[in-house]
Amino acid sequence: MFNVLVTTVPFGQNNLLPIELLETAGVNYIINPLNKKLTENELADMVSDIDLIIAGTEVISDFVMSKAKRLKMISRVGIGLDGVDLIAAKKRGISVSYTPDAPAPAVAELTIGLLITLLRSVQVSNMQMHQGKWNRLFGKRIADTTIGVIGLGRIGSRVLNRLAVFGTPRLLVNDISPSNDLSNKFKLEWVDKETIYKESDAISLHVPLTKATKNMITNKELRSMKSDAILINTCRGGIINEKDLYNVMKSGHLSGAAIDVFEEEPYNGKLREIERCILTAHMGSMSVDCRTRMEIEATEEAVRFIQNEPLMSEVPEDEYNVQKEGL
Amino acid sequence: MFNVLVTTVPFGQNNLLPIELLETAGVNYIINPLNKKLTENELADMVSDIDLIIAGTEVISDFVMSKAKRLKMISRVGIGLDGVDLIAAKKRGISVSYTPDAPAPAVAELTIGLLITLLRSVQVSNMQMHQGKWNRLFGKRIADTTIGVIGLGRIGSRVLNRLAVFGTPRLLVNDISPSNDLSNKFKLEWVDKETIYKESDAISLHVPLTKATKNMITNKELRSMKSDAILINTCRGGIINEKDLYNVMKSGHLSGAAIDVFEEEPYNGKLREIERCILTAHMGSMSVDCRTRMEIEATEEAVRFIQNEPLMSEVPEDEYNVQKEGL
Repeated sequence: MFNVLVTTVPFGQNNLLPIELLETAGVNYIINPLNKKLTENELADMVSDIDLIIAGTEVISDFVMSKAKRLKMISRVGIGLDGVDLIAAKKRGISVSYTPDAPAPAVAELTIGLLITLLRSVQVSNMQMHQGKWNRLFGKRIADTTIGVIGLGRIGSRVLNRLAVFGTPRLLVNDISPSNDLSNKFKLEWVDKETIYKESDAISLHVPLTKATKNMITNKELRSMKSDAILINTCRGGIINEKDLYNVMKSGHLSGAAIDVFEEEPYNGKLREIERCILTAHMGSMSVDCRTRMEIEATEEAVRFIQNEPLMSEVPEDEYNVQKEGL
Repeated sequence: MFNVLVTTVPFGQNNLLPIELLETAGVNYIINPLNKKLTENELADMVSDIDLIIAGTEVISDFVMSKAKRLKMISRVGIGLDGVDLIAAKKRGISVSYTPDAPAPAVAELTIGLLITLLRSVQVSNMQMHQGKWNRLFGKRIADTTIGVIGLGRIGSRVLNRLAVFGTPRLLVNDISPSNDLSNKFKLEWVDKETIYKESDAISLHVPLTKATKNMITNKELRSMKSDAILINTCRGGIINEKDLYNVMKSGHLSGAAIDVFEEEPYNGKLREIERCILTAHMGSMSVDCRTRMEIEATEEAVRFIQNEPLMSEVPEDEYNVQKEGL
């Protein structure tokens, strides 16, 4: 019998199709019994009989794979591949597919919502009002804000697109491969990251987690930002050093931050003490429509693998090179 | 000496120009010494020697005017005229001007931010995360939402404009005078308010406070909304009955609300108990740029009056008719 482990949760909650697809394919499947993001060891303990993992963001390392002698395929629900050791997978002949397009609209839209919320200090006023304090706080409009975007892939470019309707006097952008298409469509200033940190009123991150982006923003970068800047991370935990962000905000620097992703999830760290820091539980892709699409696409790809049909969304060579070269 | 009372606060906080304009005009001016929205009686006690009021949203009734024998002009910082008894002002020969355009972009943008925040339960996750609870909450994208907008004036129409970039499958709208221009620009369904209440996933209000809109949304209307609907009020307090909203949300109805305006401000009522109800301190127009523009425009108009120059933004006859006829 073919055994499928679904590690990502929730799964099939809003739409039963992914589960029906697995049942129709006639495989055994187990949905993550711990109902939370698995640690490397927890996952290693579950995989001895598993042929295929429908995966979330958990770490699937060479060690995990070494415990999964039967593993033939990993189908990621989502886009980030930082959890999967692609080089080890290739060596072991394990196929890896993902759903790069499905989460983008939901993450981009949440980013815009967080941006306006932070620019207007909604989270601060909301907290104060619930405590019975009335302060009419000044804010800024997007049209009065220099916005810095780091990472202009599927999500970052969608953020630019949605920003345009609000008017953006100055857009500072950075990406490892600057895009002419985007430059033709928007008025962009391609600058180095240091310029973005120094000159932006609002900064949003849309990069993958790689060796090059891990701890990209530490105390030094945070301190170089404007004292009333705001910072949004809806991409991956570990890119902003959480302890540094805590210390910097605790000292009064930055007017706000919105952090949706954490180095360790579930998050229970000290940023909880910072009222002007919006914290959300990795909800960027959690719109019903996008999440459903991600689950269905990843499951369809798994079923294609099971039925020996050609795969449609295998991870491209680029992503292997990123891990190989630590880009 | 010509005496000016500035009742709206804050005033001249981010930009000194309004204060400089008053000083250059060579008038006496006092800025609201209580630094909060004045009650009718508090205002009545301050106006005996006042020639001109640069006004906020406080009540300037016939009673207040009767205590202000020298009052010749009211220059409103903002758009809503529910506080000013226009009929009494006309009888007493008091000019009334306002700044109808300045607040609109800021209110519209905040509305979009609140909409996305509510659709994604950011306020709920943020509260839970700060308490150490991790729940990945599902949300909706605008593209997956039926949106109802009541009131399509300067602000409501800007909301439509900013919504378009996110994709809106179904827009239900209502206004006392349906606009062909908007119908040509957006795919709208002009429906009665009851249909909006019943069929929308998200409802946003952009009407003035008049006899016709006071208590427009009470228990009955709230109960007719979908159980997971969200409701946004950035227009005026008193349009949604606050006690009814509290009771209805307390019972579990509606998935969220964002209330920026209240019947009595500062607000200190029971909605404070409802965590999924975002409360903000009448901050719709409080972006630095829009607020500054409102203050400058209202002060320039006041100075025109003082210097016997033609006024540029007197309240139009329509607004007098609204109050006369209770529309």
